Amino acid sequence: MKKYAIIVAGGKGLRMGNEIPKQFIPIGGVPILMRTIHAFYHFDADITIILALPADQQQYWYSLCREHHFEIPVTIVNGGETRYQSVKNALAEINTDGIIAVHDGVRPFISKNILALAYSTATEKGSAIPVIPITDSIRKISIDETSFACNRSDYCLVQTPQVFKAEWLRQAYSTPFRPDFTDDASVVEQHGFNIFTINGQRENIKITTPFDLIIAEALLKQ
Amino acid sequence: MKKYAIIVAGGKGLRMGNEIPKQFIPIGGVPILMRTIHAFYHFDADITIILALPADQQQYWYSLCREHHFEIPVTIVNGGETRYQSVKNALAEINTDGIIAVHDGVRPFISKNILALAYSTATEKGSAIPVIPITDSIRKISIDETSFACNRSDYCLVQTPQVFKAEWLRQAYSTPFRPDFTDDASVVEQHGFNIFTINGQRENIKITTPFDLIIAEALLKQ
Repeated sequence: MKKYAIIVAGGKGLRMGNEIPKQFIPIGGVPILMRTIHAFYHFDADITIILALPADQQQYWYSLCREHHFEIPVTIVNGGETRYQSVKNALAEINTDGIIAVHDGVRPFISKNILALAYSTATEKGSAIPVIPITDSIRKISIDETSFACNRSDYCLVQTPQVFKAEWLRQAYSTPFRPDFTDDASVVEQHGFNIFTINGQRENIKITTPFDLIIAEALLKQ
Repeated sequence: MKKYAIIVAGGKGLRMGNEIPKQFIPIGGVPILMRTIHAFYHFDADITIILALPADQQQYWYSLCREHHFEIPVTIVNGGETRYQSVKNALAEINTDGIIAVHDGVRPFISKNILALAYSTATEKGSAIPVIPITDSIRKISIDETSFACNRSDYCLVQTPQVFKAEWLRQAYSTPFRPDFTDDASVVEQHGFNIFTINGQRENIKITTPFDLIIAEALLKQ
């Protein structure tokens, strides 16, 4: 089945204490977003890659591509105010059957193994999202700001790529936006589809803070 | 008020794929556990430090101390089969009033700021535990292995030190062990005491996997 990847790069970078949007920050000399796109291309050069990028960052992106001789073919759509809107804009570019991965632009360490497992599981079952265990204790916070202990083994952390049959994702994204849509799985499951989890990898970090950048540089050196 | 610290170093190190128990692995040339103890000593040299260490690791620890000229005064008690039992063994050494911090031996990056805030909050309110937000999406896993999206902002990750009035901790640890005692806060709150949270720091990582070691080495270089 035809494979697609929607790369969501909506970050304004405000949490980095940095002018440059987080997806453009270089690690090991190469902007994070380029590394992320390269991971998909390196896994399968036939994947159609659609990049959702805020309109006011696109000129900067083109200049970065020239500077880094980055020539992987990518369709660019405008990022939206929300992640939900960005994915919706990208989905409008896909008019065929297939399997669509939605991935954070700031998760450059996605491995070939996870990509292979995620696309194959979604092909078979309709959906696949990588999850990892929670290793710290967790507490649930109540409205009155008190909190109580939860059993961490009842919960898992969700990564991307979140991969779905195109038809599932299209149908799910016909639902109007709701604030509890924190990822694609939450959009898809409210539409009544089953979410299948696969084992993720801790190295598949989302780079959103200066602390994450330290980890990213260390991972690159491995 | 008199300050105590119970350092729990029960790790068998099995998850590290490594013979050496994780608390003894060197980062930047110094065993993790020494760095952790040093953080408390460096914050306040008058803190009475009690180290719960498995009986069969104590000779090795003494040899490490000689090798590294490590001379911070520490009372050693036998670690138990569970973290709960280790804390209980350490508590038996404390017979006065005071404020007791319970801290993971493999969290060497605890800062002076957090230590100061945790001890002062617990002095005032009876308890203090550092928590940080969950930045990934989370899902709750059901018994039938299905899962559903949760609102991550309703939850937080719990770190150590978990700090309590000595009397609270002593009373709480008179309760027989239960499997849902995943940390000290869960023991103390089931006894009816309130748990007060303070803002933790992401850098205060718990080193339990080879991935954590990579982060730890990178943090040291900052």
